[in-house]
Amino acid sequence: MKARVTVTLKNGVLDPQGKAIGNALHSLGFPGVGAVRQGKVFDVEIAETDRTAAEAALSAMAEKLLANTVIENYSVEIIG
Amino acid sequence: MKARVTVTLKNGVLDPQGKAIGNALHSLGFPGVGAVRQGKVFDVEIAETDRTAAEAALSAMAEKLLANTVIENYSVEIIG
Repeated sequence: MKARVTVTLKNGVLDPQGKAIGNALHSLGFPGVGAVRQGKVFDVEIAETDRTAAEAALSAMAEKLLANTVIENYSVEIIG
Repeated sequence: MKARVTVTLKNGVLDPQGKAIGNALHSLGFPGVGAVRQGKVFDVEIAETDRTAAEAALSAMAEKLLANTVIENYSVEIIG
C-alpha cells in the first residue's frame, strides 16, 4: 500500500523560509504572490493491507518522527 | 486564490534522506515500512482570479524556483 503524509506548519507559526521564497518569487517577476508556506511530504510504502490499520500506523509514524506536532500539522492520505 | 505546489523526486533519483527516515521508522518499531521518499509542498496565495492563469503562473514559479526540474517533478493544485 502506498500513502502520503503531508506535514505543514500550524497557523501562526512563523515561516521565514516561506517568506524568503515569497520575496524571491516577487523578484523573479511574480508580483501577484501573497504568503508562501513550505511543508514536507513523505511518500511511504507500507506492507499493511488493511486501510484503517495503515492509517493508524502512518499517524503513529507522523506523531513519533515525521512531524513536530508542537508546531506542525500532518495529514495522512492512502494513495493506492 | 490558494494553491499547493507539490515537489517530489523523479523515479530513479536516489533519496538518502528518505532512506534514513525509513531506517529510523524501522528502529522506532514500524517493521512494515518499505521505501520512503521525501518531497516538499508550497502553499501559495496568489492574487490571480482566473484558474487557468493561476495554474500557468504556478507552473512557471515551479519551473523557475520551487523545483529543480532536472531531478524533481512538480504538481499544481488549486485549493480555494
